[in-house]
Amino acid sequence: LDYRRQSRTGTPEIILAEHKSDAQVIDLVHKMLDRNGTVLVSRASRSLLDAIANDFRESVVEHPEGSSMVRVATTDRPARVVQARIAVFTAGTSDLPRAQEVRLVAEEMGVQVQIWADVGVAGLHRIINPFRQAIDWGVSTIVVVAGMDGALPSVVAGLSSVPVIGLPVSVGYGFGGGGEAALMAMLQTCAPGLTVVNIDNSVGAGIAAARIALQSEVRS
Amino acid sequence: LDYRRQSRTGTPEIILAEHKSDAQVIDLVHKMLDRNGTVLVSRASRSLLDAIANDFRESVVEHPEGSSMVRVATTDRPARVVQARIAVFTAGTSDLPRAQEVRLVAEEMGVQVQIWADVGVAGLHRIINPFRQAIDWGVSTIVVVAGMDGALPSVVAGLSSVPVIGLPVSVGYGFGGGGEAALMAMLQTCAPGLTVVNIDNSVGAGIAAARIALQSEVRS
Amino acid sequence: LDYRRQSRTGTPEIILAEHKSDAQVIDLVHKMLDRNGTVLVSRASRSLLDAIANDFRESVVEHPEGSSMVRVATTDRPARVVQARIAVFTAGTSDLPRAQEVRLVAEEMGVQVQIWADVGVAGLHRIINPFRQAIDWGVSTIVVVAGMDGALPSVVAGLSSVPVIGLPVSVGYGFGGGGEAALMAMLQTCAPGLTVVNIDNSVGAGIAAARIALQSEVRS
Amino acid sequence: LDYRRQSRTGTPEIILAEHKSDAQVIDLVHKMLDRNGTVLVSRASRSLLDAIANDFRESVVEHPEGSSMVRVATTDRPARVVQARIAVFTAGTSDLPRAQEVRLVAEEMGVQVQIWADVGVAGLHRIINPFRQAIDWGVSTIVVVAGMDGALPSVVAGLSSVPVIGLPVSVGYGFGGGGEAALMAMLQTCAPGLTVVNIDNSVGAGIAAARIALQSEVRS
Amino acid sequence: LDYRRQSRTGTPEIILAEHKSDAQVIDLVHKMLDRNGTVLVSRASRSLLDAIANDFRESVVEHPEGSSMVRVATTDRPARVVQARIAVFTAGTSDLPRAQEVRLVAEEMGVQVQIWADVGVAGLHRIINPFRQAIDWGVSTIVVVAGMDGALPSVVAGLSSVPVIGLPVSVGYGFGGGGEAALMAMLQTCAPGLTVVNIDNSVGAGIAAARIALQSEVRS
Amino acid sequence: LDYRRQSRTGTPEIILAEHKSDAQVIDLVHKMLDRNGTVLVSRASRSLLDAIANDFRESVVEHPEGSSMVRVATTDRPARVVQARIAVFTAGTSDLPRAQEVRLVAEEMGVQVQIWADVGVAGLHRIINPFRQAIDWGVSTIVVVAGMDGALPSVVAGLSSVPVIGLPVSVGYGFGGGGEAALMAMLQTCAPGLTVVNIDNSVGAGIAAARIALQSEVRS
Amino acid sequence: LDYRRQSRTGTPEIILAEHKSDAQVIDLVHKMLDRNGTVLVSRASRSLLDAIANDFRESVVEHPEGSSMVRVATTDRPARVVQARIAVFTAGTSDLPRAQEVRLVAEEMGVQVQIWADVGVAGLHRIINPFRQAIDWGVSTIVVVAGMDGALPSVVAGLSSVPVIGLPVSVGYGFGGGGEAALMAMLQTCAPGLTVVNIDNSVGAGIAAARIALQSEVRS
Amino acid sequence: LDYRRQSRTGTPEIILAEHKSDAQVIDLVHKMLDRNGTVLVSRASRSLLDAIANDFRESVVEHPEGSSMVRVATTDRPARVVQARIAVFTAGTSDLPRAQEVRLVAEEMGVQVQIWADVGVAGLHRIINPFRQAIDWGVSTIVVVAGMDGALPSVVAGLSSVPVIGLPVSVGYGFGGGGEAALMAMLQTCAPGLTVVNIDNSVGAGIAAARIALQSEVRS
Repeated sequence: LDYRRQSRTGTPEIILAEHKSDAQVIDLVHKMLDRNGTVLVSRASRSLLDAIANDFRESVVEHPEGSSMVRVATTDRPARVVQARIAVFTAGTSDLPRAQEVRLVAEEMGVQVQIWADVGVAGLHRIINPFRQAIDWGVSTIVVVAGMDGALPSVVAGLSSVPVIGLPVSVGYGFGGGGEAALMAMLQTCAPGLTVVNIDNSVGAGIAAARIALQSEVRS
Repeated sequence: LDYRRQSRTGTPEIILAEHKSDAQVIDLVHKMLDRNGTVLVSRASRSLLDAIANDFRESVVEHPEGSSMVRVATTDRPARVVQARIAVFTAGTSDLPRAQEVRLVAEEMGVQVQIWADVGVAGLHRIINPFRQAIDWGVSTIVVVAGMDGALPSVVAGLSSVPVIGLPVSVGYGFGGGGEAALMAMLQTCAPGLTVVNIDNSVGAGIAAARIALQSEVRS
Repeated sequence: LDYRRQSRTGTPEIILAEHKSDAQVIDLVHKMLDRNGTVLVSRASRSLLDAIANDFRESVVEHPEGSSMVRVATTDRPARVVQARIAVFTAGTSDLPRAQEVRLVAEEMGVQVQIWADVGVAGLHRIINPFRQAIDWGVSTIVVVAGMDGALPSVVAGLSSVPVIGLPVSVGYGFGGGGEAALMAMLQTCAPGLTVVNIDNSVGAGIAAARIALQSEVRS
Repeated sequence: LDYRRQSRTGTPEIILAEHKSDAQVIDLVHKMLDRNGTVLVSRASRSLLDAIANDFRESVVEHPEGSSMVRVATTDRPARVVQARIAVFTAGTSDLPRAQEVRLVAEEMGVQVQIWADVGVAGLHRIINPFRQAIDWGVSTIVVVAGMDGALPSVVAGLSSVPVIGLPVSVGYGFGGGGEAALMAMLQTCAPGLTVVNIDNSVGAGIAAARIALQSEVRS
Repeated sequence: LDYRRQSRTGTPEIILAEHKSDAQVIDLVHKMLDRNGTVLVSRASRSLLDAIANDFRESVVEHPEGSSMVRVATTDRPARVVQARIAVFTAGTSDLPRAQEVRLVAEEMGVQVQIWADVGVAGLHRIINPFRQAIDWGVSTIVVVAGMDGALPSVVAGLSSVPVIGLPVSVGYGFGGGGEAALMAMLQTCAPGLTVVNIDNSVGAGIAAARIALQSEVRS
Repeated sequence: LDYRRQSRTGTPEIILAEHKSDAQVIDLVHKMLDRNGTVLVSRASRSLLDAIANDFRESVVEHPEGSSMVRVATTDRPARVVQARIAVFTAGTSDLPRAQEVRLVAEEMGVQVQIWADVGVAGLHRIINPFRQAIDWGVSTIVVVAGMDGALPSVVAGLSSVPVIGLPVSVGYGFGGGGEAALMAMLQTCAPGLTVVNIDNSVGAGIAAARIALQSEVRS
Repeated sequence: LDYRRQSRTGTPEIILAEHKSDAQVIDLVHKMLDRNGTVLVSRASRSLLDAIANDFRESVVEHPEGSSMVRVATTDRPARVVQARIAVFTAGTSDLPRAQEVRLVAEEMGVQVQIWADVGVAGLHRIINPFRQAIDWGVSTIVVVAGMDGALPSVVAGLSSVPVIGLPVSVGYGFGGGGEAALMAMLQTCAPGLTVVNIDNSVGAGIAAARIALQSEVRS
Repeated sequence: LDYRRQSRTGTPEIILAEHKSDAQVIDLVHKMLDRNGTVLVSRASRSLLDAIANDFRESVVEHPEGSSMVRVATTDRPARVVQARIAVFTAGTSDLPRAQEVRLVAEEMGVQVQIWADVGVAGLHRIINPFRQAIDWGVSTIVVVAGMDGALPSVVAGLSSVPVIGLPVSVGYGFGGGGEAALMAMLQTCAPGLTVVNIDNSVGAGIAAARIALQSEVRS
């Protein structure tokens, strides 16, 4: 574990639970909690989530439903909240857990986050109002979470003048299922200004979005 | 060449020029013209298009700009025009040649065709009016031609209650370029009612759309 | 859930169970049943199917054997049955569950459906009679369900003058298994007039076929 | 060049022209001709074919139109013709050059070959008579040449009790084009008894078919 | 189930257990056993194998260790044994179950089969003697079973003048694991006379090999 | 051409030359020049670049060597230059043309750009100083251009607290060549805060980077 | 099992447990132990590891945590230790089990091995000291174990004048996950002198590295 | 150009001509020649090779036939020749140019190289003698160059106790053509001790082999 990363790059340490035993992860959570007062665990299995809920009854434990991320902390809210805002849109309800993970990561970096869920292109009317609300709220960047055809990020990037980050998710089946079609469509976007992260990489999307938002903060 | 196909399946004979020599194709055009008074050639090279223009000066030769299809006929218009209509939408201007090929094929089957070009999702406002005009015109089906992210067919299928056929085209570069992202996104559509044909398969899209439209005609 | 979709696009709301918890799905079924009197659930797990059978004892519950779809309704038959017919052919017996799902979806839209199973190309004689029967019955479109080599849709489209929809299924193993060879072969069909949906996408095939059939209905 | 291969494995030496200079190939042809009185060159470019036609005016030069194979020999016919027969079917006319290459290779091994072209599944009636004629002629094996959807070999293998070899060819475009869909569909065949060679590998198909036929000869 | 296939194509009916319930398969076994006195089941799960062993205690049940095939019959040996022989080679011991399945299928067709296991190219000396023994035994064809690098079939085809069938198996891990590298290498063979079947397709390899061997029988 | 895009999304109109004839592009350049005083053309062929150089002798024409982009304008410098800065790093010298294209695009949006070329990971010492210089210069974001193994963006993102955009380029050959390995490695980055665009998509990288930088500007 | 391999190629026999039953493997371990006094088992399942621990209580059993390899021996240390040294670096902690397997294999061949873990490129400073220590220790070759972006081997090969072997591991998710991006990036390395083995192939990496080191030994 | 690489890593600077203009490359050759007295250019086009032959008439220019590499030097032989030897085997004659490139690179590093060409597995007897001769000559490592099925490296690694490097080449057509099957088969090798480089990467293979050989030298 790289304790110096946070000071060096402004990024919270996040424990990737995959490929580690539950005992190893819980041990790391204790260490990080002692040091930082807060820690995120990503890609946690059901059994690990239960073990953490059990072991850290006296801490604040936040676990969005359906997600594989959990925040363990000594306080309810992030230590600092700055004047930097991002919006997270999801195409469908199945994309919501990944959106919540983006929120947890970005909030940990002090950024304010608001989620608009289920605004995908199969009903075009659904995206217009959320987009306007997000812009009015003063967001510096928008993360768009989508599986299947991955069309929503292109639509949002076509409307927007702020940077847009596409987060493809492993929703969908058949050819191009598991997020591959969504990733490919986002990379092939007809709307400039869109960048992407890998399938289900909510941590990457959250950190990148927060860094963009914090750039505004730094200068303002 | 299967002279009986037209009577058996209601489909015009179309000469696939690829993998044939120019001389072979021109010979086939002569034969079909004598028999049917009209013939389409698809996937023709530049040199073949020039040869046809030269050899058939006394026939009607229709070749949409940028396309690889040509119609050679003894009369200007298809022999029969029926009360069956289809719309063809294109996401970008680069998709227009494929849309024209769809039109040629469907018109050869007696169907009326109208094209709305460059109505892609990077500017969402562009699709609404064409869609309304198409529905008002009474179309039985809509063919949506798109390369790159292939997002437009999903948007149209989400708006529509008539069948929608997605035609992915080999526009785009990088990962998923050459139409693969567009095909994959259309197969992964979040909007039901969309079926697809292979990349650049304007002949298949045209025949399928015309058959759907003709079903309406047959019953009415 | 988009309650307005049905009125906007003539498509029944279908709950995609995958990526949702059993409790979430059952809650949605209750809501839809109250509102519409009928609802379909697709890609349901074994445990969800059992839970639905248990929870909705007083409703009509139709679940074709081997399929992952279930219809829950207050009445035995769809509210309306119109003069629009489609045929569903399957190459093998393993394809039958997907064919039943196509039937459920199309019937929900009021269309009449008949299935001919196990008519694949390994025994060529098997397809001729079902094809004639389907045409005589007056179908507007044919859905052909096939895994493995996916050859049957091309054979049917070569015989037919009505639109044909290919539904590749995840039957088969080794290279191209899981439906990929079937999908690819259908996209590469040598018989025009064939369009396809994604692997195992019985919902998409059913809605598209019903929309085609309903076009005939609308005009007649 | 392995001069001993013919005696060791009963296979004629065939010069693969690809990746060799024209001069290198012509030099090899001279050497083989002196030694064996006959030689085949495969995957020859247009320029090499012209050079061979020019350099070997006094030899017998057989080059099927459109193919990339040429036979150079001191006599018109293969030295020996045995009572072993194979049929070659092609799905479309574009597959004919590959079929001719299969014929050249098998004839060089003394086997009798007959080709039935353009009997693909888009018109099912076309395959029945050729199949009966081939069986009546007493073939030991059937080579089926097909591009695009590669459906014909499965149909033939479903009819046949003799071994069938599928030869996929690089005809077709879009997803699965270049012979990939044809190869995959043949590997996924629903009809047992079918084996395959690689895309465009007419040499491999010809030698394998001839070896099968010669097994019958050896025993009879 | 196509009861006529055996008489039409000389191929035993083999029940593909995958995608069928255990009850469905056992029902089919009863039916086939009544009619033919013998039946093969392929791709059977552990639970199905146990169920068959239990249900058919009074029949002959042959299940090679590690394989997913089982033969159920009223007699110990195939009804007819003809003068037709094939050899089966395996590269490693993990390939043996697939080789046994090839043997069961070919024996069911009356062909004599001998297996030489673990003769792969990592120890080149291991293949020479088995090859000589097989040729001396008078085989009409050789099936070579190999996973991982799939090199053995090319080596055998280089030595042999009888047809060789490559059967790639899903042994191996990492890039090209699951039999894909083996399949690809066999298709790219530098030794002519080799044809292939799909990964793990022991049924296809057995039937094709038996058909080749039976051709010799027919003529002799 | 969408004349309103610039006002709507703050993005300059860039003409994608691919799939358009030279005449079409030049015509568009004239129109845009009249309207905006400046225009970029991307993915221009050699012949188009020559034609533009010839046709617009009286305008300012900037074409970075080796790139496929050209800027045509009535003035030397962008109309506005704001206090927003980005750095562009390249792994090798072959990546420089794409870096210049990023610069042209971002400068057109008023952003200041500095390029550090050939700082790839094969010589680790090369990246340290440029990174420090870029940070000292006050950049809001860093675009890292890399082909082959695509390792540099991960190294830079590991050092940086500003957002980093990876631009994979089609440099490299063999497996994963053409930019695919670079793209995949960037998506799999072990360093959070990195987002990517498609292979060779310098336009997308330039616009995204400029939008990020302009966010800082807007707030400051 | 090829008992002669060790004498012929200097490589210890390693039992690949995958595709074998636990009983088969344990039987082989007994045989090898009797003959050689030491044996390695690779790709062992959890149940097999437990069975071995249980069955060989009186032997030395070494099983690195998280790995799927186990060494069973009658003595604690390899029979011979020679003056040949290799270093093993890992990018992350998840790569450590594979590194331990490399160590076990190379030590079995008498080579001295030292591991430096978690020195990946996301923190560039971490690699410098381990690299210097390894060179000072006098290593003949370096094995670099990395998943995800696979960037570390290129960085090490750029620093090093000794041969470097890249071992990609199946760590990572999404596009290019499972080690594919790491493999591809290593094959596309911008730093010459790097060779690779397949994903997770710690046995191959260990043997190759030991052979290189032993070459030095042989000559010295 | 990294002038320090040679002293830092013992590797000669090699100019990768691809993606550079002829003028750029020739300029670099002049610079390197002045500094080092010798330089290699890789992946040179025909026109560049001609230009170099013309421009450097007074230097030693070595260009193996068919290869894309050229050595320009002021002296005939490498400055130093050490007691370190490698063998290069090729499967076919088409692989020879890549073998010559390996030789040029390794010789530039002072290593002695001998090539045995056309010893592929289709004629197994061909490899035995060259292998013995190479071992007798005292090689430290063997590079095996193979396209198509890539089987030879596995055979050689099975015979050898010295490290073996597989160099897959882009020879072959159809599925897995262009070197992909060869690469995959080498990665899946059943013979331990084999490492690989990317397709056609003769530079990488040469440097890695020379480094291994030089390790022996250093110690002796």
